[in-house]
Amino acid sequence: MSSDADHHEPEAKRAKTEDSNNAGDTDIHLDLKDFAKFKFGEVLKEDPVRKTLALKATVDGSTDPAVVFLEKSAFTEECGKKILESDTTLKQTFHNDIYGSYTGFPQQELNGVKVTIIHPATSKHIAKFSAKESIIVNETPQLYKDVLLEHLKESAFNVQWVYNILEHRSEQERIVCEDADPETGFVLVPDLKWDGESLESLYLQALVHRRGLRSIRDLTADHLPLLRNIRDRGCEAIEKKYGVPASELRVYFHYQPSYYHLHVHFTSVQFDAPGTHVGKAHFLSTVINNLELVPDYYQRATLTYYLPRSDPLADKLRRATDGVSAE
Amino acid sequence: MSSDADHHEPEAKRAKTEDSNNAGDTDIHLDLKDFAKFKFGEVLKEDPVRKTLALKATVDGSTDPAVVFLEKSAFTEECGKKILESDTTLKQTFHNDIYGSYTGFPQQELNGVKVTIIHPATSKHIAKFSAKESIIVNETPQLYKDVLLEHLKESAFNVQWVYNILEHRSEQERIVCEDADPETGFVLVPDLKWDGESLESLYLQALVHRRGLRSIRDLTADHLPLLRNIRDRGCEAIEKKYGVPASELRVYFHYQPSYYHLHVHFTSVQFDAPGTHVGKAHFLSTVINNLELVPDYYQRATLTYYLPRSDPLADKLRRATDGVSAE
Repeated sequence: MSSDADHHEPEAKRAKTEDSNNAGDTDIHLDLKDFAKFKFGEVLKEDPVRKTLALKATVDGSTDPAVVFLEKSAFTEECGKKILESDTTLKQTFHNDIYGSYTGFPQQELNGVKVTIIHPATSKHIAKFSAKESIIVNETPQLYKDVLLEHLKESAFNVQWVYNILEHRSEQERIVCEDADPETGFVLVPDLKWDGESLESLYLQALVHRRGLRSIRDLTADHLPLLRNIRDRGCEAIEKKYGVPASELRVYFHYQPSYYHLHVHFTSVQFDAPGTHVGKAHFLSTVINNLELVPDYYQRATLTYYLPRSDPLADKLRRATDGVSAE
Repeated sequence: MSSDADHHEPEAKRAKTEDSNNAGDTDIHLDLKDFAKFKFGEVLKEDPVRKTLALKATVDGSTDPAVVFLEKSAFTEECGKKILESDTTLKQTFHNDIYGSYTGFPQQELNGVKVTIIHPATSKHIAKFSAKESIIVNETPQLYKDVLLEHLKESAFNVQWVYNILEHRSEQERIVCEDADPETGFVLVPDLKWDGESLESLYLQALVHRRGLRSIRDLTADHLPLLRNIRDRGCEAIEKKYGVPASELRVYFHYQPSYYHLHVHFTSVQFDAPGTHVGKAHFLSTVINNLELVPDYYQRATLTYYLPRSDPLADKLRRATDGVSAE
């Protein structure tokens, strides 16, 4: 399931309650065998790389819309073999020398599409599945102080779940490695997105024991022992437990992170992990190197990243400058 | 067509010539309507994110193998509409409250697969379509001096085509903006991968007039006027010609670059352009900021990137260090 479609959000429950007089609405999934009751509304988002399409649709007998999220299924070896060895029609587009380009029409049962249907869908569901325009932000140290620090206070991100892990109140059995030192220690746990088994998609996170470090913006040369410890002991623990050497690990921070308690991502370089693009991922090796060259690098650097145009933070940054883009 | 499949390489011609006694081999595309003559050999590469599969196959009556590259086609609005409004069977996987997960089986003609067939395929074709294991390289200033500079000399990358553009001997009509200053000047041209029209996939490159700058490794604070000029005048020219403002432009170098004459990439942030991951892309804004903080930053920095394990450069780096991965 795509990352767009894998979180059941709290508003879902609310939607159900609000609509509970609207008999039949939440029953749509009890006996759905085709799209006969659905009418195409509009495209919310098209992703030609991942081959997904999010649609808004109306549903006969309901006043609420549905979100229909389509995703072409990935090929497996088994399915590739069957496509070659069963009756697949080929229609040539062009050929040139030894190269030929075709459209193939495999047997229907070999060519399923993953379909996620949300009904009744609220405006939040619609927004979540809609295309978001991005903008580039060049966050100067001044903008960080004036806008970001205020934004973090107002948003009051809750990191209680992190403290629960650090204090062994939850996920204790999932800990891969722990260094209890209050200054340089950390806990290494598998990321929730990882099944914990397939080495290709290996994904772990190191959460620092030390409180009060929100992001790389708070790091100085004083934290080099902490950072080197995470790098060395984190990689060592992963090689020991999973057999994946440091030369095959991508080790990085996110800025902006999704939660503001300092943490480091470890993923396999054989895996196209989400959030590894420039403007989001910052290699731990680069952060260490920057702090070695300039002890207060992250208090002096302009950090460039993307935000959805509709993000409240983008609005705050826009108001604080003449134009967010202007360097 | 996927980036894996869109280059017809010189060896293709050679393969044809070598095999020209092998009657019928290159005729496979003349009348191919299905895979009846093909037998599944092995999977070369599976990409579950992009939904592609590369296979090696044997072909009846030929001693040479074929490469078969399958790619699920992207959804269009038209096709999404038809899937909803024609006879698509749904099979439920699970449901929970307002969420339902299904496998859909659209009409065969709505659900084609792009198929590229290369036959006869040489060992180079097989290698090109096979999965490549990557490794992480931490290139210290010492490794750059000892290994990279030697490697660049030995490889003798030809950048004559760049000089042809800079000297107006080719692509003159494609120039979007030129500043002829020998120190701070550059030429801005649409990238060959861009159709020059669709603003979403906008992709241009700025080539510096100055010779002898191979990559960001050669940059110092002395080049700040050049870099700021590219940023300001490049963004200005793109806004003027295409209406895309600087706040929607991703402006970056590649390290390692694909050719060693300094150049800057401009792509739309609304587009998931290839080569924008950390370990490949370096924002121009970050490079400028690093040189402002440390005038010889790029002569002192350790730069982290990926290489295919089988890359000759990976081998040279491995021999120069105890382990490429170690810091």
